[in-house]
Amino acid sequence: MSQRLVAADASTLPPEFDLRLRELLRSDVEFIQLIEDDLITAGGKRIRPRLALLASEVLGGVPHALELALAVELLHSATLLHDDLVDDAETRRGREAAFRKYGNAVSVLSGDYLLSRVLFLLAETGRVELVHLFAEAARLLAEGEVLQFQAAAYREYSEAQYYRIIESKTAALMRAATEGAALLGDAPRTLRKALAAYGRAYGLAFQMRDDYLDLMGEEARLGKPVGGDVQEGKVTLIALWLLEAHPDEVEPILLRRGREPGDVERLRRLAEVSGVAARVVAAIEERVEEARRALAALPEGPARAALEGLALAELERLQ
Amino acid sequence: MSQRLVAADASTLPPEFDLRLRELLRSDVEFIQLIEDDLITAGGKRIRPRLALLASEVLGGVPHALELALAVELLHSATLLHDDLVDDAETRRGREAAFRKYGNAVSVLSGDYLLSRVLFLLAETGRVELVHLFAEAARLLAEGEVLQFQAAAYREYSEAQYYRIIESKTAALMRAATEGAALLGDAPRTLRKALAAYGRAYGLAFQMRDDYLDLMGEEARLGKPVGGDVQEGKVTLIALWLLEAHPDEVEPILLRRGREPGDVERLRRLAEVSGVAARVVAAIEERVEEARRALAALPEGPARAALEGLALAELERLQ
Repeated sequence: MSQRLVAADASTLPPEFDLRLRELLRSDVEFIQLIEDDLITAGGKRIRPRLALLASEVLGGVPHALELALAVELLHSATLLHDDLVDDAETRRGREAAFRKYGNAVSVLSGDYLLSRVLFLLAETGRVELVHLFAEAARLLAEGEVLQFQAAAYREYSEAQYYRIIESKTAALMRAATEGAALLGDAPRTLRKALAAYGRAYGLAFQMRDDYLDLMGEEARLGKPVGGDVQEGKVTLIALWLLEAHPDEVEPILLRRGREPGDVERLRRLAEVSGVAARVVAAIEERVEEARRALAALPEGPARAALEGLALAELERLQ
Repeated sequence: MSQRLVAADASTLPPEFDLRLRELLRSDVEFIQLIEDDLITAGGKRIRPRLALLASEVLGGVPHALELALAVELLHSATLLHDDLVDDAETRRGREAAFRKYGNAVSVLSGDYLLSRVLFLLAETGRVELVHLFAEAARLLAEGEVLQFQAAAYREYSEAQYYRIIESKTAALMRAATEGAALLGDAPRTLRKALAAYGRAYGLAFQMRDDYLDLMGEEARLGKPVGGDVQEGKVTLIALWLLEAHPDEVEPILLRRGREPGDVERLRRLAEVSGVAARVVAAIEERVEEARRALAALPEGPARAALEGLALAELERLQ
């Protein structure tokens, strides 16, 4: 495998990525192929493989960086397919959720097909330690997803639980993307720790920004209606802090999952006037700063700058 | 890990198996733990781990046989959890399907949790070749399951497709159980080929027997109503051959998925009088013979006899 896959401007992936992706997802079972075609066409931001390739680049290139990038993307895609059952979101990545077309069963089993390709990619690296790293990330991912479901079912809302959920369901895989590169490159311990810390902090910032915009963003830019998390009973930081600040007004809205007209708009206004929105933005800024500080231990250059740019872009999206 | 886990009488697994299983499935996320408890309590026949341990035993014991046994069982259990969505079966292993209690989402995500434990177990063996072997088995498993769904949706019925489905969804993992032991023991090529051939032929016989009894068995012994496959539109050998023998009578029954009273009983009677049932039994016998022939290349002893016993038991169940 190529040792130096340049992805330093952070906005593109090398053409090998798409080629290998198509090759990996090829199946002569038509129903699998249809779903995989959907995934490839939908594309998405592909943040996780970019993290993996930039982390490789910052270390001067590591063996099997492309396999790592593909493995994190496919593990993420499998989770999306399995998640389609959970979320009631009308759109995902701007397209009709695959399962509406082909049924739950095919979605779930096609997700399993992706997971088998993750196994294959991990084996291709020849590094059993990477299999361990992914086992832990995958375990956290599944736990985080179930915990989110459980919290909604029991209406268990706490800040500690919110952080545990996003740490597991989002930050763990982002961390595996960056730390995985350090593992593949046999990087010194300080560099590995720095890349792990960056991936984790970036992952937290990423999910916190996503959750913030779910309520406070603009529909036109989001490509979906605001307030989706409230409607699904998901715990987010902004909902928690709103509940603390205005329990009498916010609790009934959250309990009825924002179903009455004006509910979501009311939460947005309350978040602005009470300063809760600003506090959440500040908390995201803290995570972005943490990610940037972690980068200090890494060699300077375009790849490090690109990783910093990714973190800063999370703040820009809040504007 | 213990090098010689004796499971030679084929009816029991060593106590370490259950202990490690519980340990692996422990999660502090309550919803995961509930589903995993169900799996452990339900038990099942645990044929796959027995195959792995007997294959190890026939080779005089191999390193990490217990991890292999646990990995095949957990991969199978994950498929059952993901399959609950597909099958409309009222019971699975004699218990209410887990997803009816906790919802589809938690079932699927708990299946993913199991898969993360499979990854962990594979990593524990330290053998990246085993990761490759499982990647291929898992790919076939997913393809086989989707193909079965697709065949039912398109009403594509052919003998070739039936064999492809059972080869993928059942025989591939049975083969991984036995061949995996050879891989872990660095067995000579002839022994590895023999164990792979045994696992595959046994897997085919196992699934063919299961499909045969689904129509021709007795409800009391099966623990579920007969004719389930017909109702789900699943392609099985007996349905295919019945269709060939009595197209005018059988086609409408299959098309309406045996929904009219007496449909399933009619198929059973037709299978008996036309000799189709006897032909299917003969086809199963052939696979059992194939499995027994494969064993000839392996060292004689109680483990080999137990593997032979497992294959013969498939025939006994037909009585």
